Amino acid sequence: MASATTTTEKNPAFVLRAVQDVAFEDREIPKLRDEHEVRVHVAQTGICGSDMHYWQRGRIGDFVLKSPIILGHESSGTVVEIGSAVTNLKVGDRVAIEPGVPCRRCDYCRAGSYNLCNDTIFAATPPWDGTLAKYYTVASDYCYKIPDHMDMEEAALVEPVSVAVQVCKVADLRANQTVVVFGAGPIGVLSQAVAKASGARKVIAIDISQARLDFARAYAADGVFLPPQAKDGTDPIAHSEAIAASIKEKFELGEGADIVLECTGAESCIQAGINVAKKGGTYVQAGMGKENVVFPITTACIRALTIKGSIRYSVGCYPTAVDLVASGKVNVKKLITNRFKFEEAEQAFELVKAAKEGVFKVVIEGVQ
Amino acid sequence: MASATTTTEKNPAFVLRAVQDVAFEDREIPKLRDEHEVRVHVAQTGICGSDMHYWQRGRIGDFVLKSPIILGHESSGTVVEIGSAVTNLKVGDRVAIEPGVPCRRCDYCRAGSYNLCNDTIFAATPPWDGTLAKYYTVASDYCYKIPDHMDMEEAALVEPVSVAVQVCKVADLRANQTVVVFGAGPIGVLSQAVAKASGARKVIAIDISQARLDFARAYAADGVFLPPQAKDGTDPIAHSEAIAASIKEKFELGEGADIVLECTGAESCIQAGINVAKKGGTYVQAGMGKENVVFPITTACIRALTIKGSIRYSVGCYPTAVDLVASGKVNVKKLITNRFKFEEAEQAFELVKAAKEGVFKVVIEGVQ
Amino acid sequence: MASATTTTEKNPAFVLRAVQDVAFEDREIPKLRDEHEVRVHVAQTGICGSDMHYWQRGRIGDFVLKSPIILGHESSGTVVEIGSAVTNLKVGDRVAIEPGVPCRRCDYCRAGSYNLCNDTIFAATPPWDGTLAKYYTVASDYCYKIPDHMDMEEAALVEPVSVAVQVCKVADLRANQTVVVFGAGPIGVLSQAVAKASGARKVIAIDISQARLDFARAYAADGVFLPPQAKDGTDPIAHSEAIAASIKEKFELGEGADIVLECTGAESCIQAGINVAKKGGTYVQAGMGKENVVFPITTACIRALTIKGSIRYSVGCYPTAVDLVASGKVNVKKLITNRFKFEEAEQAFELVKAAKEGVFKVVIEGVQ
Amino acid sequence: MASATTTTEKNPAFVLRAVQDVAFEDREIPKLRDEHEVRVHVAQTGICGSDMHYWQRGRIGDFVLKSPIILGHESSGTVVEIGSAVTNLKVGDRVAIEPGVPCRRCDYCRAGSYNLCNDTIFAATPPWDGTLAKYYTVASDYCYKIPDHMDMEEAALVEPVSVAVQVCKVADLRANQTVVVFGAGPIGVLSQAVAKASGARKVIAIDISQARLDFARAYAADGVFLPPQAKDGTDPIAHSEAIAASIKEKFELGEGADIVLECTGAESCIQAGINVAKKGGTYVQAGMGKENVVFPITTACIRALTIKGSIRYSVGCYPTAVDLVASGKVNVKKLITNRFKFEEAEQAFELVKAAKEGVFKVVIEGVQ
Repeated sequence: MASATTTTEKNPAFVLRAVQDVAFEDREIPKLRDEHEVRVHVAQTGICGSDMHYWQRGRIGDFVLKSPIILGHESSGTVVEIGSAVTNLKVGDRVAIEPGVPCRRCDYCRAGSYNLCNDTIFAATPPWDGTLAKYYTVASDYCYKIPDHMDMEEAALVEPVSVAVQVCKVADLRANQTVVVFGAGPIGVLSQAVAKASGARKVIAIDISQARLDFARAYAADGVFLPPQAKDGTDPIAHSEAIAASIKEKFELGEGADIVLECTGAESCIQAGINVAKKGGTYVQAGMGKENVVFPITTACIRALTIKGSIRYSVGCYPTAVDLVASGKVNVKKLITNRFKFEEAEQAFELVKAAKEGVFKVVIEGVQ
Repeated sequence: MASATTTTEKNPAFVLRAVQDVAFEDREIPKLRDEHEVRVHVAQTGICGSDMHYWQRGRIGDFVLKSPIILGHESSGTVVEIGSAVTNLKVGDRVAIEPGVPCRRCDYCRAGSYNLCNDTIFAATPPWDGTLAKYYTVASDYCYKIPDHMDMEEAALVEPVSVAVQVCKVADLRANQTVVVFGAGPIGVLSQAVAKASGARKVIAIDISQARLDFARAYAADGVFLPPQAKDGTDPIAHSEAIAASIKEKFELGEGADIVLECTGAESCIQAGINVAKKGGTYVQAGMGKENVVFPITTACIRALTIKGSIRYSVGCYPTAVDLVASGKVNVKKLITNRFKFEEAEQAFELVKAAKEGVFKVVIEGVQ
Repeated sequence: MASATTTTEKNPAFVLRAVQDVAFEDREIPKLRDEHEVRVHVAQTGICGSDMHYWQRGRIGDFVLKSPIILGHESSGTVVEIGSAVTNLKVGDRVAIEPGVPCRRCDYCRAGSYNLCNDTIFAATPPWDGTLAKYYTVASDYCYKIPDHMDMEEAALVEPVSVAVQVCKVADLRANQTVVVFGAGPIGVLSQAVAKASGARKVIAIDISQARLDFARAYAADGVFLPPQAKDGTDPIAHSEAIAASIKEKFELGEGADIVLECTGAESCIQAGINVAKKGGTYVQAGMGKENVVFPITTACIRALTIKGSIRYSVGCYPTAVDLVASGKVNVKKLITNRFKFEEAEQAFELVKAAKEGVFKVVIEGVQ
Repeated sequence: MASATTTTEKNPAFVLRAVQDVAFEDREIPKLRDEHEVRVHVAQTGICGSDMHYWQRGRIGDFVLKSPIILGHESSGTVVEIGSAVTNLKVGDRVAIEPGVPCRRCDYCRAGSYNLCNDTIFAATPPWDGTLAKYYTVASDYCYKIPDHMDMEEAALVEPVSVAVQVCKVADLRANQTVVVFGAGPIGVLSQAVAKASGARKVIAIDISQARLDFARAYAADGVFLPPQAKDGTDPIAHSEAIAASIKEKFELGEGADIVLECTGAESCIQAGINVAKKGGTYVQAGMGKENVVFPITTACIRALTIKGSIRYSVGCYPTAVDLVASGKVNVKKLITNRFKFEEAEQAFELVKAAKEGVFKVVIEGVQ
């Protein structure tokens, strides 16, 4: 077992102690849990909406913060220690870290649906520590070596690219299809970019921020649309049908889009999304907002839609995302608007929380 | 072109003249529209919910009664005339009639999704005449010859069996899966029977009528469940989760059913249905009720469900349904509770409208 | 860690020392390799063709006997020891043992195709010991608890049923399809039975032994066919086309079978099999014989066939096979023609080697 | 019915009268066969291998030249007459012509597999006339309007692009897969280009002509490989394994390619192609050569390959191909090496027959 650490070294970490209570702590350097693990010196970490959720509310669904956890899960770094059974990596390799390692033994894992595993160790999801520390240990097959010309910021942002890859995979997106994407935030624009890289014929971005639409148009989308507000008293479903009709007409989608990717979770987008799909088309729910929404189920039935939920990523998403970034097909550098040092992590979180228009993707440099 | 009719003969028909206004009329014998059509002497016709809708309300969705139409679309009969290009049938053949003939030229038709064709001629769907007449003309490839040992009542009920076959096909149902079916009306119990005939491991029927559940249990279901009423003030979604949990526990479904077939359209069933599906499972919406419902979209997303709408039938459904009935795998005779003569058609419709418990499937014998 | 053994007990085993050299040995009782394993007291073991291969020739493909291995891989038994992390089983549980445990970490495993894993520990495949011993240790998730009414012989024969389940799964066999199966040996007749249990409309068995066809007809097949020998000088491909034409005509398969399952590996069957598939149909190669054969590739191309190889079993096959046997849909007791005591293992192998007509499936009872 | 012709006008045509016997004839202007047809004034026609076959040998498979037919099937043109039921086109529209119109009534057509229809009217396939004439009549839904910026040569070459689209569709090719294509002729390089446009990660071209490989490398392929000749006495299968190993190593394909597209029909390529596919990978047979070949069936079985035949094109291929050309993703102009006037048609055919290295794709301009 190769090692590059001394016994007295500590593991500086950015810890969520309780709701809205973060602090820097010196933790013990994590040990490899078994001979298949590696320890990574973290280089860059992106901040994501779920980090915000735990920080501000302490829970997402069934995952509840009960004891302190280290935050962060979109990270890259350099391998500094490898377990005795590791063959795919060596000390010094630069890697993108897939943050969720499943149990490998349940029916979901054995069937290749490891994103559904109930026993996944997922970074910064209670009770598991995240990656905003100097060191992070993880199964070696969940670390992906990056090519020399790819930098650590790019490698950190392989994570949201992977989410977008899964969204397109769940959609069973094929070359030459038409795709309408609701949402032009990070996952939205990355889904648009991945769809284009997959040969989509026409990708349309929908958002309520013109600035985000301008970015989406310059980034990957073939067309953008800012839906009008409903007038007071308008039936929401009727309004969603009108929006869907406008989108179909403006972008010459005929009976509708082959594929709809819903990356906002907003009720009005969900309603418009179902209506903009063509008969026999596919709608993917990737965004999460209200738990329950008013839903045009009869339309879904009569139009014989396929509606699918996308969650996390599955086998092949990370390697694909690494390749999309490495090949230049998806440019993640353009998404980064703000950079912070490790010791400025709280400022970074505050900036994301403020949700100002110009702030898109924020990354935090690791401890040297 | 072989013909068995004389020029003076008429075509007695049961006509919906306007909403809630039916009458017997002597129509002209319909002519073959092209050389690929056949004329069928109708033998038996089942009554279905959509017939009721047009009779009582004059519309289903975009299909609105604007001029009189002959009712009926679940029929069997004997071929009495064939077009010059017909090769698959001859005069005297006994057939089940698939009631919708698509345009064959649109993208849906060419892609094999003819149930989505916008230009389908569908019996008893305005403005098209139905089958409750002595004669009906239809494309020869939409008539399916039945074996000698199958009777005309069975052949008429191939139609609802075909609907159930499509439901299971849309579900991509595989051998050894667990299946929960909401609804124990005709389409519900037939879906249960088709699921069993497709090798399903365990089929559970849910309904609010104990009598229907008793029938379902004796017919094809491995287990049945009558969901408790929600107490006043209970959150409907929470109630649906409780029902789903009860079903999973009672029938040892573990994390949930592989497949959920929703054949009621009731909001509470839709909600329970989404909750009873396992992660990665498939839910098919086949029933239609309220146009929009409160829907647990986040559950659908997190559990990575596949939700699909099933409408009418597609290629292969009718032949499969004929075979299921002919082989005895699906017994449709057991569904028939009431039989009427052609001249009693209105009484038959009134009986179905009354919706008494003992009335399940009603058939009308054709004009001799 | 629960244990039911004493330290002085040994593990009697039937060992293949070298090609055609078997012996009984007293091995050490195998230890659990990790906390997820269980130790099973073996109850019954079926003999399979691959056991014969290693015994007589010492190799199958790249797997070469270099040091002694315990034979046997179709086994059932009772759990006598469980690792500390085991939750799905307890001491005393009666189980069917899936004989191959994959690495869980390679791309194949992570993608749900564990049958393709290069690092599978497969019972009685060099260099791994098999199950013909008193005790066998195996990962707990590769042991499947059987219901009380299922006996140990049935549980042992879950293995070949699982192979047949995989064959039908690879074929993507759907209800109401027509299926032609080449071969009426154990895997052939089980594939026929699994196809029927999956709702196949018509299953036809082909074999050159009338006795086997008689068994197949009584067991699960709807029809059987003994192909005529080619006359001297007949072109083999032309002969295979003639056989295919005869099968299509005799069993009213129209343009051909939806599904062809080739369970012999014989060149003439492969050729006939390709020719008997309908356009757009699916052909599965499950049997193995000559490494290379003369193959009608242009027919396969023009008819747009899908040709797939089936190997071992994948996720869900064992549970499905357990259920098929437990539910009585597949009766494996009828396959057993000969039973031996553990100490008669060599006679059992000699009997299988002799390949007499009346010998179908041979099982060996374990050490008490 | 709009018409732009006078009654005395003729239809100059390039006719194959018998094997190796071509001539120019003045045929009657073809009439619309039904109200759904259009008449096209042909603008450009590409020459394809199948034209050569009928010219030189008079047959392909079951299609045998028994009476004269007009040659040509890769054509574009301008609509000059439309049937009364035509709604998708008007006189003056510039179109690409899909040369095969199926029966629309058989099970294949109804299932969306119209390329398998036994009753397709296919241009220049006996007994049907082709497009090398001034006028050609065809069903309006098999004509695809092209955008203004696309020229008639490009529109004619939509046909081979469509073949390549079908090859990739049959392969179920997904973004980020690795693809090895045997053959760098027109269909080979177009398949490489379509694969790249579909997001393939790495596309490798194999051919025995270095000039063709040079073109492929410049056109769309990421890498090219010229397989070495087998030495005298080398076992062909062993040689194919060595070639496959070289390809895997040189292009870092690990266990092999995700997808193999065989566009030559050559026995040695088929053998190497099977060996170069990874376990669980897909191999598509698109080229046609010897009817039967020595085939590594055991490798196909053990590696659980999916092997599929690709023939013609299916629904969606033509629209996709039009879009790929119109969008510039596939540049067909680069393929054209030689252009002829209509009256030089025989010289054009002679040039293709000569098969010189610099001749790639030859087009013939239509009669003005």
